[in-house]
Amino acid sequence: MNKNVLTNLLKIKYPIVQGGMIWCSGWRLASAVSNAGGLGLLGAGSMYPEVLKEQIDKCKANTTKPFGVNVPLLYPNIEAHMKIIMDSGVKIVFTSAGNPGTWTALLKQAGITVVHVVSNTKFAKKAEDAGVDAIVAEGFEAGGHNGREETTTLCLIPIIREAVKIPVIAAGGIASGSAMLAAMALGADGVQVGSRFVTSEESSAHPNFKQAVIDAKEGSTILTLKEITPVRLLKNDFYNELAQAYDRCASVEELKTILGRARAKKGMFEGDMKEGELEIGQISGNISTIKPAATIIEDMVQEFETGKKRLAQISW
Amino acid sequence: MNKNVLTNLLKIKYPIVQGGMIWCSGWRLASAVSNAGGLGLLGAGSMYPEVLKEQIDKCKANTTKPFGVNVPLLYPNIEAHMKIIMDSGVKIVFTSAGNPGTWTALLKQAGITVVHVVSNTKFAKKAEDAGVDAIVAEGFEAGGHNGREETTTLCLIPIIREAVKIPVIAAGGIASGSAMLAAMALGADGVQVGSRFVTSEESSAHPNFKQAVIDAKEGSTILTLKEITPVRLLKNDFYNELAQAYDRCASVEELKTILGRARAKKGMFEGDMKEGELEIGQISGNISTIKPAATIIEDMVQEFETGKKRLAQISW
Repeated sequence: MNKNVLTNLLKIKYPIVQGGMIWCSGWRLASAVSNAGGLGLLGAGSMYPEVLKEQIDKCKANTTKPFGVNVPLLYPNIEAHMKIIMDSGVKIVFTSAGNPGTWTALLKQAGITVVHVVSNTKFAKKAEDAGVDAIVAEGFEAGGHNGREETTTLCLIPIIREAVKIPVIAAGGIASGSAMLAAMALGADGVQVGSRFVTSEESSAHPNFKQAVIDAKEGSTILTLKEITPVRLLKNDFYNELAQAYDRCASVEELKTILGRARAKKGMFEGDMKEGELEIGQISGNISTIKPAATIIEDMVQEFETGKKRLAQISW
Repeated sequence: MNKNVLTNLLKIKYPIVQGGMIWCSGWRLASAVSNAGGLGLLGAGSMYPEVLKEQIDKCKANTTKPFGVNVPLLYPNIEAHMKIIMDSGVKIVFTSAGNPGTWTALLKQAGITVVHVVSNTKFAKKAEDAGVDAIVAEGFEAGGHNGREETTTLCLIPIIREAVKIPVIAAGGIASGSAMLAAMALGADGVQVGSRFVTSEESSAHPNFKQAVIDAKEGSTILTLKEITPVRLLKNDFYNELAQAYDRCASVEELKTILGRARAKKGMFEGDMKEGELEIGQISGNISTIKPAATIIEDMVQEFETGKKRLAQISW
């Protein structure tokens, strides 16, 4: 039997990574996912350095399994974050939103496994050249910050698979064992799951936000703000204000003024469904329950196995 | 072994449908696909009634296997088209771009199998209620006219699968056996393939257009003209003119003036890569060869089988 290259690399049971999401993925979620056989990630993007330190300590206290930290490389206090990560003995770092050339070598020297998030082939190759151990290839469907090319997961995974030799983790549109099976049919070695874990019991998302994700239907999310940083949002009053600005050809400055500051915290963490910035994947339209993280993983693995058997029976 | 419901319904060998595409799919392509075990479709959307009649006759003369006709229901001369189809004894009709309630019953009474193209759950249910035999669920990636919700194939197939009982054919982003395997992992009974057959030897696409599709990379296509009818286009001079109009918040009237008439013919059939409207799927970025239609199908089936075996070996 082929032991999966990704589970080997990360020393986990199932090739399921829980995306490190701002305001949603603290120690409760990350440790629950790691305890259930996936890889839990702390989302450092919404944490002050001292909060990250505390979260790492709590995660360690709650799981003996591998877990990691997701760090957006454009974070203003990146040096403080990286120092805490290295000093704490964290073994896995996922980097995103920035140049993998800046930190990869340093992290690797500290014995850390480095995975970088990309949304196109060019940056996948750059990440491989920078020495990362694996990449997350994130399609148009994904929540949070996405590529400008709008390449969907179905189109992206095969070209990234062909472009690099290192393990590829598919992200965007994956909330079920069937989608995991589809991603691996396309050549991915594993998957990163975001939205589905936002609606886990252990996620630190505000209950209002969890409910809004469950209520989402087809067409409830949209990729917007491409002029600043592309992001996929649940359509709400804040988004409608943006849409009206677009309709009158507002300047980038005006868009930035509307966006303001701390919108994501207001929505995702504090529960303001009207004025908050609600980052979530398109697959939210397919999610209708809140479950413990361990159940989400068990269900995915079970559905993956069932699907695999169903596919094996197809004949012409 | 489960005999596939779609191959049973359409009386074909492989659950691979060649999309009925304007200017690209005449009798040469449709008969080649049907002869190779898939379902070939004539794209009636770009044919005058007398041309359609001639194409049906030639298709009949070149294959004894089932083939069909794709008819956009908004076509101005729809009655003439439907009369020719029924008089000619065509056995399969794919309808798109319109209300399936208008023609389905009449076609069914004439003994014709009817399949309708949708891009969301609402219209999938409407089509099922109208009595169609199967649906094509077309994701954001697809070439031609797409849904306004921007739901990608990966997110769309599972919700449509759950919403209807009739067979579901996945479309958008599928040009390989791996993508076919992925689509069937998501619950589709088969696939409709467009862009890959545009670059077949038998396609009636202009050689310049075939070459442009082969040259396409990530980010080369974009879904645009949502204010009129959403369509995915290769970015060229014509698209740039549209993009500039969007940048200055042009009116819908102005967009319509820029679009003008017969742009698709100019590009896809006459080979004007600058001023033509070049409808193609996002998966064009993954296509790099021109092959006979039969080889495309053989390669897909082979890759599907290889992928199936690879998935079967995955263990934890």
